[in-house]
Amino acid sequence: MAAMDEFALIERLLAPLAHHPGARRLADDGARLPPPAPGMELAVTKDMMAEGVHFLPGDPPDLIARKLLRCNLSDLAAMGASPVGYLLGLASDGTRSQAWLQGFAAGLEQDQRQYRIALLGGDTIAAGRLTLSLTAFGEAPCGRALTRDGARVGDLVAVSGSIGDGALGLMARRGQLGGLSGADRQSLAWRYLLPQPRLALGRALRACAHAALDVSDGLLADAGQLAR
Amino acid sequence: MAAMDEFALIERLLAPLAHHPGARRLADDGARLPPPAPGMELAVTKDMMAEGVHFLPGDPPDLIARKLLRCNLSDLAAMGASPVGYLLGLASDGTRSQAWLQGFAAGLEQDQRQYRIALLGGDTIAAGRLTLSLTAFGEAPCGRALTRDGARVGDLVAVSGSIGDGALGLMARRGQLGGLSGADRQSLAWRYLLPQPRLALGRALRACAHAALDVSDGLLADAGQLAR
Repeated sequence: MAAMDEFALIERLLAPLAHHPGARRLADDGARLPPPAPGMELAVTKDMMAEGVHFLPGDPPDLIARKLLRCNLSDLAAMGASPVGYLLGLASDGTRSQAWLQGFAAGLEQDQRQYRIALLGGDTIAAGRLTLSLTAFGEAPCGRALTRDGARVGDLVAVSGSIGDGALGLMARRGQLGGLSGADRQSLAWRYLLPQPRLALGRALRACAHAALDVSDGLLADAGQLAR
Repeated sequence: MAAMDEFALIERLLAPLAHHPGARRLADDGARLPPPAPGMELAVTKDMMAEGVHFLPGDPPDLIARKLLRCNLSDLAAMGASPVGYLLGLASDGTRSQAWLQGFAAGLEQDQRQYRIALLGGDTIAAGRLTLSLTAFGEAPCGRALTRDGARVGDLVAVSGSIGDGALGLMARRGQLGGLSGADRQSLAWRYLLPQPRLALGRALRACAHAALDVSDGLLADAGQLAR
């Protein structure tokens, strides 16, 4: 598909996802966000992913879309914020098939329903390798969002979930893990393909935790961040 | 410079630009945006740029940074919104020199001062060609932001500035424009390198215009959008 055809198709596929009143089905370049409820403030975050770095060329497009969304929702979870909506940026060389793009949009739609969020707007450009950028918006009570640097000497440090499954899942997908059952390989692959943002946990932690972050650079590196 | 060194340098160069209280000098993955003043709502927009498509590899890095910022500010201007801050996404192959990165950060700083905005956060990833993503935040009175589709039959259509200078400036930079004086070539090149977001005009138009957009796909294409 030529780049211009691809962009037209992307717009057609994404417009129904922009059902937030301020997004107006992508009619404008920007979107409006009505003020948060009294006592609430906005939390914003932006994570990018590139093909061959954060996902493999053969990964299913719906799971690429959902991973992109969930990486950002995970940042909101670490702040104790509830997601509201997102902006999507997509740089592509115009070689995506219609089926790929439909899968990508279907993945976004699935997680929009799950997390009750909406597409607000974004941009699509011609570029080299597929590079995705997402900006997520959430809400948290004013001044009560969790930060990294609230940690104090003597704090108990706790981790949710099991650590390193994503990296093992990538190895499993590359066929680098011998001696595993098919079921184990499959369950690790899912951990790589579809992260689980801990939104409910993040909100609950606002009441008792001094600090929080989502582990993305490895437990040791991120524990070091917290310690600093 | 290796990618990891480049990313560490980028973080060091950008942290001082994140002086908005909600950005906390990039200490967290996300940022907080305190609620807008009573009666105001948030306007958000996201534009991406890729090397070789939206700027040339030899363009000065400070002007690349400022163009990225201003493309987004121009979207806010078309909504009649006043800019507040922005998130920056940078995908790079790790081959930028220290001087290039310093120039890029200096360009951001210069326009931050000019438009009284601050960096709020963002992401830096390893990828192929340089791809930049920016999300800009602005404020406008609730329900009073300008849209594209407010246009009515019989409306007067007006354009600010002179049309096509950016495209001519790109041709001038490529040496494709003969018969021009050096001064003319230089002034067209500046129009390509450094767009002027018409923020004051956008705010003023809220009082009298039914619709607005910033011309980016060419006058004919964008006038067609308005007409539809």
